[in-house]
Amino acid sequence: MFRHVTMFRWATGTSEEQVQGLARALGRLPDAIPALRAYRVGPDAGLAEGNWDFVVVAEFDDAEAWRAYLAHPAHQQLIAEHVRTMVAERASVQYHC
Amino acid sequence: MFRHVTMFRWATGTSEEQVQGLARALGRLPDAIPALRAYRVGPDAGLAEGNWDFVVVAEFDDAEAWRAYLAHPAHQQLIAEHVRTMVAERASVQYHC
Repeated sequence: MFRHVTMFRWATGTSEEQVQGLARALGRLPDAIPALRAYRVGPDAGLAEGNWDFVVVAEFDDAEAWRAYLAHPAHQQLIAEHVRTMVAERASVQYHC
Repeated sequence: MFRHVTMFRWATGTSEEQVQGLARALGRLPDAIPALRAYRVGPDAGLAEGNWDFVVVAEFDDAEAWRAYLAHPAHQQLIAEHVRTMVAERASVQYHC
């Protein structure tokens, strides 16, 4: 299995409505992108100081499938319409597991 | 399910030997900490610019089990013996999924 993990910190002024809009858009990606084997995303639970705001954990068969996800028009549209207007910081790791 | 995700950037000078020592120590935690339902950790695959260095994804039944993991002596020992000497930056999210 090949996992892609991305964390975000939102820009000051990002609204709860924007976060919910992103979460709904992310929820539609597995139907649009068959290479996504599992996709679990969500806001931080708010239980620890200093945490980042949101995480995406995506699972693929291999790195090639991950690249297809990155380039997929539905993913690119989501980034353009949602993520770009909200993100202050982004941290990613891909790993074999 | 309750997930805990942590990413690390290693300090300059951190050796491959140190990273492998950490990975081995992490591999022993599931036997020591029954609250850990799944534990998939590893170094970044090196396929994308600007990525962080290492990720830990831990799964628990609930937030209470996550707190037990945080406080568990085996986890605390691993942080003291491995993580503290290596870490430059740390980013975490806990989320319900």
